Amino acid sequence: MKLPFAAFTLAIAASTLASPLAEVPFPANYRTWMHVKSMVIEPGHALHAAFGGIHHLYANDKAMQGYRDGSFPDGAIIVFDLLEATAKDNAVTEGARKVVGVMQRDAKKFSTTGGWGFEGFAGDSKTQRVVGANAASACFACHQAQRAREYVFSNYRP
Amino acid sequence: MKLPFAAFTLAIAASTLASPLAEVPFPANYRTWMHVKSMVIEPGHALHAAFGGIHHLYANDKAMQGYRDGSFPDGAIIVFDLLEATAKDNAVTEGARKVVGVMQRDAKKFSTTGGWGFEGFAGDSKTQRVVGANAASACFACHQAQRAREYVFSNYRP
Repeated sequence: MKLPFAAFTLAIAASTLASPLAEVPFPANYRTWMHVKSMVIEPGHALHAAFGGIHHLYANDKAMQGYRDGSFPDGAIIVFDLLEATAKDNAVTEGARKVVGVMQRDAKKFSTTGGWGFEGFAGDSKTQRVVGANAASACFACHQAQRAREYVFSNYRP
Repeated sequence: MKLPFAAFTLAIAASTLASPLAEVPFPANYRTWMHVKSMVIEPGHALHAAFGGIHHLYANDKAMQGYRDGSFPDGAIIVFDLLEATAKDNAVTEGARKVVGVMQRDAKKFSTTGGWGFEGFAGDSKTQRVVGANAASACFACHQAQRAREYVFSNYRP
């Protein structure tokens, strides 16, 4: 089928408008980024169902600028790397990866969720998304409480 | 007093021989290095007295080469960053720094302790040494068990 040029242009425009929220890409090489801090969430904790295990936060250079200055520039990316926590013989060790959570700063692209895009990648997958179009309810609903800190919970531990 | 030249030379040689083990410097900027892995050691663990808390391992580029290839070149440095672990409300969070442990590779300089120099710096101090001349008994005695892995216990977690 041949579309007249005007219709074709319209189709493109419509598909742009109708596209779902901008996607947050998998944060390549985040394991080489700065380690911000860590925490263990145990059974019984209110967030255990979602975030039980041991998590590490990693930040790229722009996100480190945000931790320092309190203002996160576009391009800042924070990773929440969640692993199983195995408690045994009076020690807690790291197990399999549960999810790679990502916050990516782009004030325009993600204006409906505080200027941050949120995504989660299941286990060791770089493609299996667990948040997708649910960022507002699945992520931003809680992060909203941190409005005064640009929606970030963590602090850099020197 | 004027020493004859021969005696002077002898004095220098003697002071070199009598000098304590080579010192391991404080690992400047280790917090920007790769985060290797983490672990929590709880009360009741055999190593709790020495290493109780949450520890993170960091590696410089040469140490990362060692983790990858199994052979640690001179200049490789591994840091054992030990913090208080605060267990409360079903979560374990990071507290004050207890010690910054350091392994620094120099096959010649530290030949009596497997080619690794060992040191610990108390709390957030860059100068207060807690191992000093006791590296053989305080550190290497245990690390010796890891001879097949060049005396390193940790593995890099991808």
